[in-house]
Amino acid sequence: MKLNKNMKILIVGLGLMGGSYARALHRRGYSVSAITKDQSSIDFALSRGIIDKGSTEIDADIIGEADLVVFALYPHIFLKWLEENQHLFKSGAVITDVTGVKCSVVYKVQEMLREDVEFIAAHPMAGREVYGVENSDDRIFWGANYIVVPTEKNTEEAIELCCELGEVMGFYDVSVLSPEKHDEMIAFLSQLTHCIAVSLMCASDNPDLVHYTGDSFRDLTRIARINDEMWSELFLENKEALLFEMDRFKSSFDKMYNAINEGDRESMREMMRLSTARRGNFDRKL
Amino acid sequence: MKLNKNMKILIVGLGLMGGSYARALHRRGYSVSAITKDQSSIDFALSRGIIDKGSTEIDADIIGEADLVVFALYPHIFLKWLEENQHLFKSGAVITDVTGVKCSVVYKVQEMLREDVEFIAAHPMAGREVYGVENSDDRIFWGANYIVVPTEKNTEEAIELCCELGEVMGFYDVSVLSPEKHDEMIAFLSQLTHCIAVSLMCASDNPDLVHYTGDSFRDLTRIARINDEMWSELFLENKEALLFEMDRFKSSFDKMYNAINEGDRESMREMMRLSTARRGNFDRKL
Repeated sequence: MKLNKNMKILIVGLGLMGGSYARALHRRGYSVSAITKDQSSIDFALSRGIIDKGSTEIDADIIGEADLVVFALYPHIFLKWLEENQHLFKSGAVITDVTGVKCSVVYKVQEMLREDVEFIAAHPMAGREVYGVENSDDRIFWGANYIVVPTEKNTEEAIELCCELGEVMGFYDVSVLSPEKHDEMIAFLSQLTHCIAVSLMCASDNPDLVHYTGDSFRDLTRIARINDEMWSELFLENKEALLFEMDRFKSSFDKMYNAINEGDRESMREMMRLSTARRGNFDRKL
Repeated sequence: MKLNKNMKILIVGLGLMGGSYARALHRRGYSVSAITKDQSSIDFALSRGIIDKGSTEIDADIIGEADLVVFALYPHIFLKWLEENQHLFKSGAVITDVTGVKCSVVYKVQEMLREDVEFIAAHPMAGREVYGVENSDDRIFWGANYIVVPTEKNTEEAIELCCELGEVMGFYDVSVLSPEKHDEMIAFLSQLTHCIAVSLMCASDNPDLVHYTGDSFRDLTRIARINDEMWSELFLENKEALLFEMDRFKSSFDKMYNAINEGDRESMREMMRLSTARRGNFDRKL
């Protein structure tokens, strides 16, 4: 199956990410339907012309006609949804997701899924500190990375389809990683950073700080506004890799602590020079 | 002394910050001169009309006519400069600075300074990851905080003059703090955040990360590009307060680590809710 404009795309879970997918795909001329829990989300999306139709019910017609189904749900809800409703998929349908952890999801889904439907996992590395389809905006994909996460069970065709989906929606960089490599990478780049920001924000209860803050603190804690329900689930679903990266960060932070404590200026400067050189490569391509 | 346009202002150290002061003050119609170590900085500033005159020498005329002298030097160079050249100040001159730590500087300066010259410390909380007068830009002051840091030795007049200076240059919020409170605050809001960013950047040497990074990692490590000479000096000059804040952060981070390790989702969510509520107050006023 190649991505083509006669294809019917169904989005399950019309929040910030599902809504942004809908906007991007509808803009490109695809037929987009949605199933989500709140009627207000469907009404909003219809009124903005982001979707062609939608329902808050498990609508057998909408599910049965979809060639490509995108799941934008929390991991445990995604798994439960599949258990209960996978019999409604069209034979030959491809399903994908946006879940932020992979090992704990991908293998389970592929094991439980019907033989005539293929699941190809993906992780759009874009997000905002706001929620809901009302805040959806496909510009969050510009300059961002999209990662396709296949296993040995996936066909070349589905991997290509999923890559094409990321490109069509306007992601800057589309790449392919194994579930294990993905989870390692996400533990360091995303989960650890959120742990740091939240911990920092919790470290001092001085209410006066807000009057004196500079951009460095603002930038570092932007992601401390966090959806606690979603992120606590994602952290626990990737516990082992995350704890490993937290340990690595702690060692590095302790090295800086000891250098300061011992007045070892050369060790401090060495770390600073290393961080400066490395950070140079990480600017957004925009 | 009130700030007025007949006043002659001298900036010692024409780098990013000194140059940005010069731009802001010259734009408002003040007469600005500069003393700095490189002729190329003077030439650049003259060619851009940022200063009226400048020298790489200890020019007795320029120093002797200045009513207000701003020092934008590293702490140890600032102290050495004063020791060698303070006899050249005009009687009644007010001097100020931009140094990022205060206890280790302010008391020493006030103790060594001539009786007929007043030092009122200030910290403009603005900066960039670039250096030199060539990159100076007084827009870095917009929306930023400016802190005046007096001791018991300071006169009301000088405190007011210094506050007015911050306002005239376009800072959003001008406030007054003791050296001790300033250093506590800066240890948490600025130095700790730089320690975290540098440590994170040093924690993994995986060169592939750059292909998969998202905005959270970019934001958190923006300040990992750091002037190692300046920041290592600032860290050591504020060692005690910084180590105290690093300990507080470590406790908070360990609490998150333990919650994840024990699968204690409610403790994780509690920290996330606290950080979300607190962070809401910290957005830039711009």
